[in-house]
Amino acid sequence: MTKGRLEAFSDGVIAILITIMVLELKVPHGDNVAALRPLVPVFLAYALSFVYLGIYWNNHHHMLHAAGRINGKVLWANLHLLFWLSLVPITTGWLGDHPRAPLPAAVYGGVMLLAGFAYHILEQTLIAAQGAESKLAAAVGRDLKGLLSRVSYAIAIPLAWVHPWISIAVYALVAAAWFVPDRRIERTV
Amino acid sequence: MTKGRLEAFSDGVIAILITIMVLELKVPHGDNVAALRPLVPVFLAYALSFVYLGIYWNNHHHMLHAAGRINGKVLWANLHLLFWLSLVPITTGWLGDHPRAPLPAAVYGGVMLLAGFAYHILEQTLIAAQGAESKLAAAVGRDLKGLLSRVSYAIAIPLAWVHPWISIAVYALVAAAWFVPDRRIERTV
Amino acid sequence: MTKGRLEAFSDGVIAILITIMVLELKVPHGDNVAALRPLVPVFLAYALSFVYLGIYWNNHHHMLHAAGRINGKVLWANLHLLFWLSLVPITTGWLGDHPRAPLPAAVYGGVMLLAGFAYHILEQTLIAAQGAESKLAAAVGRDLKGLLSRVSYAIAIPLAWVHPWISIAVYALVAAAWFVPDRRIERTV
Amino acid sequence: MTKGRLEAFSDGVIAILITIMVLELKVPHGDNVAALRPLVPVFLAYALSFVYLGIYWNNHHHMLHAAGRINGKVLWANLHLLFWLSLVPITTGWLGDHPRAPLPAAVYGGVMLLAGFAYHILEQTLIAAQGAESKLAAAVGRDLKGLLSRVSYAIAIPLAWVHPWISIAVYALVAAAWFVPDRRIERTV
Repeated sequence: MTKGRLEAFSDGVIAILITIMVLELKVPHGDNVAALRPLVPVFLAYALSFVYLGIYWNNHHHMLHAAGRINGKVLWANLHLLFWLSLVPITTGWLGDHPRAPLPAAVYGGVMLLAGFAYHILEQTLIAAQGAESKLAAAVGRDLKGLLSRVSYAIAIPLAWVHPWISIAVYALVAAAWFVPDRRIERTV
Repeated sequence: MTKGRLEAFSDGVIAILITIMVLELKVPHGDNVAALRPLVPVFLAYALSFVYLGIYWNNHHHMLHAAGRINGKVLWANLHLLFWLSLVPITTGWLGDHPRAPLPAAVYGGVMLLAGFAYHILEQTLIAAQGAESKLAAAVGRDLKGLLSRVSYAIAIPLAWVHPWISIAVYALVAAAWFVPDRRIERTV
Repeated sequence: MTKGRLEAFSDGVIAILITIMVLELKVPHGDNVAALRPLVPVFLAYALSFVYLGIYWNNHHHMLHAAGRINGKVLWANLHLLFWLSLVPITTGWLGDHPRAPLPAAVYGGVMLLAGFAYHILEQTLIAAQGAESKLAAAVGRDLKGLLSRVSYAIAIPLAWVHPWISIAVYALVAAAWFVPDRRIERTV
Repeated sequence: MTKGRLEAFSDGVIAILITIMVLELKVPHGDNVAALRPLVPVFLAYALSFVYLGIYWNNHHHMLHAAGRINGKVLWANLHLLFWLSLVPITTGWLGDHPRAPLPAAVYGGVMLLAGFAYHILEQTLIAAQGAESKLAAAVGRDLKGLLSRVSYAIAIPLAWVHPWISIAVYALVAAAWFVPDRRIERTV
C-alpha cells in the first residue's frame, strides 16, 4: 500500500477545505465601507481557521514523512481526522456570524478538540504500524504539546459562557504555539 | 497509459465530493441550541455518506493497487463510477432535509445501488484488462460481498415505504460490513 | 519544466469542474416525486456535460502522454482551454433551467465551440514544441474529427432558434462520436 | 522534506480557487439576452482574475522548479501567499457586482498588493533557504518587475476614487506585463 496516495488524498481534502471555507465570506451587498463591516468577524474567524488547517497540513506532512509503513487502520484513522476537519468551515462560518454568542465559540472548540483527539489517534495508529522502536515513536515522544492543546480546548469550551472571546483567545494562543512546525520530528529525522 | 493519473483523478473527485458534501450542512441561522437541532439529521446523513465515500476510496485504492494494466474501457468504467458517486452529496442533503419521508431514503439507496453496479463493472473491466489468471481476479473471486450489498440495497429501497428508517438502517449495516478494507485483496496481494 | 505538474494541475481543475457542476443540481424542496420533476432536465444537462468533461480529460491525458516536451506557450494554451471548460458548469445550469429556450442552448454550444478551438490551439502548440516530425504530429494527423466537431457546433448554434432540442441533439451526437478515446494516438504511440 | 508535496498542495489550492471563482458567475434567472447583461462585468472580472491566478501558478511553478531545498519557513511563506490568493474570488465577485464603485476596485487592488508582497516574501525565504550564491538568487536578481507591480498597485488603489476604471486598467496592464512566464528564471536555469 502506497503512502503517496494517502498523502495526496489528505492534501486534496485539506486544500479543498481551506478553499471552500472562503465561500463563507459572502460577497458584500453594498459597495461602501458599511457593507464590509459585517465581514470583519467572519474574516478574522476565517484567518484563524486558515492557520489551524495550515498547522494540521504541516504537521500531517511531517508525521507521514517520518512514517514508513501504513495499513488499513491508518487509512481509517486518517479519514476520521479528515471528518472532523471537514466541519471546520461550517463552525468557522457560524462563529463569524455570531462572534458574541457562547454556543458557536464552544462548538468551534468542540470540533477542534475532536480533531485534536483524531490526530492523536492517527499518531498512535501510525506508531503501532511502525513498531515501538521506530523513528516516529522517538520523534513524537510523550506528545506533551498535543495533550496540552486538548486540555486547553476542554477548558476553553465552558469558558465561552463566561465570555466567548476568552475561548477564542485560547484557540488563538494554541494556534500560535503550534505555528512552528513540529521541531521534535524535524530534529530527530 | 499511466495508472497514476487515473488514481490521482479519482482521488481528486472523491476528495472534492467528500468535501462539498459538507456544504449541505448550512451555517445555522440562530446562535442557540434550537438553531442546531434541524442540523442533526443532516449531520447524521453526512456522517453515513462520509463513511460510504471513504469505503469507496479505500476499496478503489486496493483494487487499483492490485491491477497492473489499464485501458480506455477502464477510464470510462471509472468515470461511470464517479458519475454515480457525484450524486451522493445531493441525495445526502435531500435525505438529511426529509429524514421521515420515504422517497429521499429510496433515492439515496437507488444511487447507492447504481454506484455498487458501477463499481462491479469497473472491477470486471479491470479484470478483463489483466487476464483471467491475474492476481486481481484471484483476489476478487466471486465478490459475494458486493453482490450481497447490491441485493441489500434492492430490498431496502421498497422498504422505505414501510418506514424510511428501515432502509437507512440497512444502508448503515452495509457500510459497517464494508468498513474493513477488502481483506481478500490485501491477503492475496 | 515538468510535464507532471501541468497534468496534475489540469486534472485538478477538471476534477473540480466535474464536481462543482453537481452543485447546480439543487436539493429538492419537497419530499415527493413532484419535487424531483424540475430536476430532470438539469440532471440530463449534467450527464451530458459530465461526459463532455470526461472526454476532454481522456483526450488531454492521451495527448500529453504522447507529448515529450512542454514550454511556456503550452502552459498558457492549457490555461486557455481550462478557462472555457470552467464555464461549462454555468452554461450547463442555465441549459438545465431553461431546456426549451434557444439562447441557453446556443450559449452552451458557443462555449463548446470555444473549448474546441482552445483544444485545437493546445494541440498545435504542443506539436510546435515537439517538432513536426514528432510522434504527436503523426498521431494527430489532420485532426478531421476535431474539425468536424467544431463545424457541428457552429451549425448547431443557430439551429437553437429553430428548436433548442435540435442543437442539444447535435451536441449529444458529437459527444457520442468522441466517447471512444482518441484511437489514432493510442495506435501510433 | 519533499518539495513535491508543497507543489501539489499549492497546485490544489490554486486549482480550486480558479474553479470556485466561477461560482460567482450565477446562473442567469431569465432565458434571454437581457438576463445575460448583468453577467458581463462579472465575466470580465472573472477573466482578469483567471489570468492573475494563472500567472501566479506559472511563476510559482518556475520559482519552485529553480529551488532545491525547502524548510518550515518556506511552508508558512507559501501558506501566507495562498491566504491572500484565497481572497481573490470574493474580491472578484464584489468588483463584478459593482464595477462603477471605487471601494471594490480599491479592495481588489489591495488584495493584489498583499499577494504581491506575500510572493516577494516567499521568494526571499526560498533564496535564504538555498544560499545567496544559488541559481534562484541569480535568476531572480533584483526583481524589478515585482517591485514595479507592487508600486503600480499602490498607485492604482487611491486612483479608484478618481475613477474605478483607471485602477482596473492598471491591474490589467500589470497582468499583461506578467503574462509571459518569468524569462529570467527560464534563461538562467
